[in-house]
Amino acid sequence: MTEQTEGAVTVLGLGPMGSALATAFVENGHRTTVWNRTSSKADPLVAKGAVKAETPAEAVRASPLVLVNVIDYDAARMIVEPVAEDLRGKTLVNVTADTPDRARDMASWAADHGIDYVDGAIMTPIETIGRPESVYLYSGPDDVYKAHQPTLASLGGTATYVGADPGRAATYDVALLDSFWTAMSGVIHAFALAKAEGVTAGELTPFMQGIVGLAADIVPELAADVDRGKYPGDASTITSNAAGMEHIVHAAHQRGIDAGVIEAAKAVADRAIDDGHGQDGFARLVETLARR
Amino acid sequence: MTEQTEGAVTVLGLGPMGSALATAFVENGHRTTVWNRTSSKADPLVAKGAVKAETPAEAVRASPLVLVNVIDYDAARMIVEPVAEDLRGKTLVNVTADTPDRARDMASWAADHGIDYVDGAIMTPIETIGRPESVYLYSGPDDVYKAHQPTLASLGGTATYVGADPGRAATYDVALLDSFWTAMSGVIHAFALAKAEGVTAGELTPFMQGIVGLAADIVPELAADVDRGKYPGDASTITSNAAGMEHIVHAAHQRGIDAGVIEAAKAVADRAIDDGHGQDGFARLVETLARR
Repeated sequence: MTEQTEGAVTVLGLGPMGSALATAFVENGHRTTVWNRTSSKADPLVAKGAVKAETPAEAVRASPLVLVNVIDYDAARMIVEPVAEDLRGKTLVNVTADTPDRARDMASWAADHGIDYVDGAIMTPIETIGRPESVYLYSGPDDVYKAHQPTLASLGGTATYVGADPGRAATYDVALLDSFWTAMSGVIHAFALAKAEGVTAGELTPFMQGIVGLAADIVPELAADVDRGKYPGDASTITSNAAGMEHIVHAAHQRGIDAGVIEAAKAVADRAIDDGHGQDGFARLVETLARR
Repeated sequence: MTEQTEGAVTVLGLGPMGSALATAFVENGHRTTVWNRTSSKADPLVAKGAVKAETPAEAVRASPLVLVNVIDYDAARMIVEPVAEDLRGKTLVNVTADTPDRARDMASWAADHGIDYVDGAIMTPIETIGRPESVYLYSGPDDVYKAHQPTLASLGGTATYVGADPGRAATYDVALLDSFWTAMSGVIHAFALAKAEGVTAGELTPFMQGIVGLAADIVPELAADVDRGKYPGDASTITSNAAGMEHIVHAAHQRGIDAGVIEAAKAVADRAIDDGHGQDGFARLVETLARR
């Protein structure tokens, strides 16, 4: 057990992610109190030096800083609402993944009960927690965040404060997961298409890494167009992009492969073309998406 | 005009891509004959040293190697079918983008007319042609490809021969474009979502590049699962992936943003869950997609 030199912290919710967070705090010398509905999940952490609380109230009273990480905000509120009085004057950092509106609702609830509230988003997988490659985003009152920054720094990696609006961390979270899961869906669909044509995923891999990497490389250019609200079609136009997508749809249908994702993507491009924007660049679709 | 030391080549179709290909041949010293339906497109190439043919027949007779690059295979066949007898004994390299079945159809047609046929795919944008970053894929009889490899090398960059089946280059092409356009759709959708919540595309950019890059990093791992037909859910499960996608759908609906692409992606995950595969990893969806 490490010598305890840093601020005390409580972790509510000991799924794989919550357990990883608690482990990082323990290993960095924080007096770490843990609670989970199924209390046996706390035992491996107790073995590492954490203190097991029998109730959420007991857990919350043990530390000035309380992190909650559960399946969604409904689950988070079921845990913290009954202990609102115990949380008064303390800081609640909610690193449960959910949507921006729910983060703002929870911040309002916390404010109504005299609880300082910071909303957090963990952008990297469980195995990165405590390590340099982990990425955290936080939003909420900046003085509250700063007061607890040294303790939160024990989670390792890079922490970025993204603003006072408590919905901002969740906005980054859903937006980034959106691009991630959409990209992953494209990779799997491409493997399905190739497999049906006798090309293995392994054969495609080096090229696939190149082309997904190219999409990453283009992000700053697309972002500049989006933020300026100007969408030059110099490099390629929505009309030519849609023609490429049509080849993919056709190839998938030829082999009886579900083409729902690329059809939905093409439908957005077709809508922009119908609106007279076919000669614009792809970034124009940011406006098409917002006007359904 | 460069001294002509290398094999003669003909380029049919002088859109921006065809013109770039012809330019690269001219600049590398090939006697380059060009033809386009709207013949004025040939003039800038003639100024660089190309020879303008008045008809496809004249163009085809000028060189042992004929490249065609037009909008799709229907357009390509409208040009080459009337000159089949002029092409007999020559090599036709079709770098028009289309689907694997159409590439195989065109190879059959070529074989019926005693024409050697190689199908090609150009994987990088027009501005890369002739430069080290360009990427080309070719498929068809390997002796035919090898015979013309030195001339094709004048296009620069990296050329990879992907097999004897003439449909393979087009398979790589549609599969790679599939992952590219799906990823791009995810990036734009994420920007739309963030914008509606007051986060600019520029603010998201560094994180977005990181997470799309993470998708690229995961490709080899997914590919290994796909090729083995084993889909362990150790790192994350389809059920948890679908829960993440549901947050994105919800966040988009809250702001009236079209969620068609991520809904289609989630529908595939939901189908896998309904089939009893919720505890498998994401790579399992390669099978779900193939069974609609």
